[in-house]
Amino acid sequence: MTIWTLDETHDPNAESWISSANLESSAFGLQNLPYGVATAGNNAEPVIVVAIGDQALNLSACAAAGLLDEIFGVDACGILCRDDLNALMARSPAEWRALRLWLHRALRAGSEMQSGIEGFLLPIETLRMRLPARIGDYTDFYCSVEHATNVGKVFRPDNPLLPNFKSLPVGYHGRASSIIVSGAEVRRPNGQIRVDGDIVFAPSRMLDYELELGAFIGGGKNDSGVHRLPEARERLFGVCLVNDWSARDIQAWEYQPLGPFLSKSFATTISPWVVTMDALAPFRVAARERLADDPALLDYLADQDEARGGALTIDLAVRLESAAMRERGDAPLTVTRTNAAGLYWTFAQMITHHMSNGCPMMPGDLIASGTISGETQGSQGSLLELTRRGAEPLDLGNGESRGFLQDGDEIVLEGRCEREGFRAIGFGECRGAVLPASDWS
Amino acid sequence: MTIWTLDETHDPNAESWISSANLESSAFGLQNLPYGVATAGNNAEPVIVVAIGDQALNLSACAAAGLLDEIFGVDACGILCRDDLNALMARSPAEWRALRLWLHRALRAGSEMQSGIEGFLLPIETLRMRLPARIGDYTDFYCSVEHATNVGKVFRPDNPLLPNFKSLPVGYHGRASSIIVSGAEVRRPNGQIRVDGDIVFAPSRMLDYELELGAFIGGGKNDSGVHRLPEARERLFGVCLVNDWSARDIQAWEYQPLGPFLSKSFATTISPWVVTMDALAPFRVAARERLADDPALLDYLADQDEARGGALTIDLAVRLESAAMRERGDAPLTVTRTNAAGLYWTFAQMITHHMSNGCPMMPGDLIASGTISGETQGSQGSLLELTRRGAEPLDLGNGESRGFLQDGDEIVLEGRCEREGFRAIGFGECRGAVLPASDWS
Repeated sequence: MTIWTLDETHDPNAESWISSANLESSAFGLQNLPYGVATAGNNAEPVIVVAIGDQALNLSACAAAGLLDEIFGVDACGILCRDDLNALMARSPAEWRALRLWLHRALRAGSEMQSGIEGFLLPIETLRMRLPARIGDYTDFYCSVEHATNVGKVFRPDNPLLPNFKSLPVGYHGRASSIIVSGAEVRRPNGQIRVDGDIVFAPSRMLDYELELGAFIGGGKNDSGVHRLPEARERLFGVCLVNDWSARDIQAWEYQPLGPFLSKSFATTISPWVVTMDALAPFRVAARERLADDPALLDYLADQDEARGGALTIDLAVRLESAAMRERGDAPLTVTRTNAAGLYWTFAQMITHHMSNGCPMMPGDLIASGTISGETQGSQGSLLELTRRGAEPLDLGNGESRGFLQDGDEIVLEGRCEREGFRAIGFGECRGAVLPASDWS
Repeated sequence: MTIWTLDETHDPNAESWISSANLESSAFGLQNLPYGVATAGNNAEPVIVVAIGDQALNLSACAAAGLLDEIFGVDACGILCRDDLNALMARSPAEWRALRLWLHRALRAGSEMQSGIEGFLLPIETLRMRLPARIGDYTDFYCSVEHATNVGKVFRPDNPLLPNFKSLPVGYHGRASSIIVSGAEVRRPNGQIRVDGDIVFAPSRMLDYELELGAFIGGGKNDSGVHRLPEARERLFGVCLVNDWSARDIQAWEYQPLGPFLSKSFATTISPWVVTMDALAPFRVAARERLADDPALLDYLADQDEARGGALTIDLAVRLESAAMRERGDAPLTVTRTNAAGLYWTFAQMITHHMSNGCPMMPGDLIASGTISGETQGSQGSLLELTRRGAEPLDLGNGESRGFLQDGDEIVLEGRCEREGFRAIGFGECRGAVLPASDWS
């Protein structure tokens, strides 16, 4: 077990020579060090970067300068002088840790390396962030029992939770080509929807967000043999925020019997910074307790490492800003606040289950948690739940209300980990604004 | 409309200077010219090849020799000196046609080009075929009304066909990473299944094949705007055979509410040769007639080109060879015979629907038809249907019977197009043998 353990990189008293990183408000303190891919300037080649305060260290440039060869035992430029994180993800957890330790020491106040790397810093505000990886396959799970129950209640009031939910992490294959990075606009989809009893092809009237976490897969391609949970856990590279935009009216008509399809594959927004499992180590908590009358957990899904905690405590929020708010300069409204610790299944269980049939997982693949909802009003991760499918619209407090999203609405997801005795870390934003549908008439 | 039209490349009297191509029994006559990717010899680099009789023309070598530059107006080696067809797929239908015409003329008996390309021929039997493209995303549709009805009857005898079936091509996102090429062995998956009322993790007991066709997508990435059916049709590059291996017991437990997942993503086998839409032009037939009480077709799915036929007449067959048959040298048993012309939805309708929500389609993406079944016994494209979920096992005629597949069984899909006045063309084989499950105990 080489990942998710505490070491000097988690020292809460460590400060960086980049002073903005030392502000408590910064998402990107020295203890975080998330990876991304960005272009700086109009014609620049994309490079791999690490966020530190309001700066980003150009890791591709560090590798090109030969500073990182000893970590990988090979020419590090082959791994890091790229426009995606896939080659880094394909390395081992021990190498991920070694790179993190190098970054920590290089960026720590008093580091001898400061003068050697200062020239490789780029202000984050000048960067154009890109997708951090080439995502070969994308899987979306359904791991929040509150979300599954809330959604089930809309359709089956007496029997909201389906019988398989607590036996396996329910999931489905998503569409990799429609994953976009934070900031890209989202066009309202057209599709077949029911209007006054008739099926018509028209813009969705029930556009929704879904608050999720996504985990990027690392390591080498597995074979079709036996890959138990501890091995599967080491395939987890890092986490980002995911907005799994959903068109509820398209979904309701299309989804039987093969599941959601075009109701999801128009756009899925992810945050650009990948927070590593090592950075998240202090925020591990025990997986959600199974109730006495829950079905027994099958052996292959048992987390033998439960003392150390397979779940993550991450405070999550969703802000909504309407066009009218933006015009008037009003602050966005926080519509969802919840925490990821309540998920019924852990990422290690999801990936173990995913590989249990022999399915090849590749570096750069993304698995998402499904919508993260809590039990109380305001903690639900979608408007479908918050408004009971539009029946109880949200009051935005400025004279507007929302059953579902309107054109011009912007949704921002945020995530932050806090724990006594540790430096808080953040995920940055996952942002997207809704454009009007294309006109097929 | 530049694809799917007849020209000199369909001349049934044209013969090749490669005599094996002129045998009526050959799948790969001069009128076919399917593309594939192969390695010849152990350490050879993969190359793009075109099948002609029992030979394959090394197209990468032709491009490297500068023979093809005029077709693309650029260095053809950038498109064809590769280990996948993606760059060729990304070109225009006019260029696909131009390349086909060049191949036809180069390989036709009496061609002046014979001496210049003879050295680029490789015997097919010496090739190791690979996946023809890097498949970014894979979508599996559900377009056979007979299949949907047969499957529905197993679960809902009174109401087998769901209400959306005739309004839209139902589909779901599949797993790209588990697509393998003909000849690769298929390991029986483990998974959660119900045994004597209990859910256990064990090898699937209901392993099945599914007979399908797959279409590779060409052209450039679409935006989120309006892409009508004639435009979508021009994104179709070519067709292969698909065996969508399915574990029915895993599927039955996992699939609510998000659809099939691990019951499919352990393996999907495709045939290595991509038969182009141009090669299939003579085999276009009218799309299946909609019945008087079918719902009206929404405008965006209407095929304005119906006079020329959006469907394809392709005779399809499935052969099963058990280990015992192989040992005794018995001939494999043909268990399914059907034709693709009966599909309720055409590939042009599938892709139009797929892009209608703004979903980006990329060159190399694969869309499959779903299981192709007919109305009569023996024309069903899966054992689930042929044996009524194992209740009526198939007699293999040698003392063996099958409800579902056993370890050692080999399944071979075959496809062939025949039509009066045209040279028949074939798809080659889509082959896979079942290995025992991995031992998790």
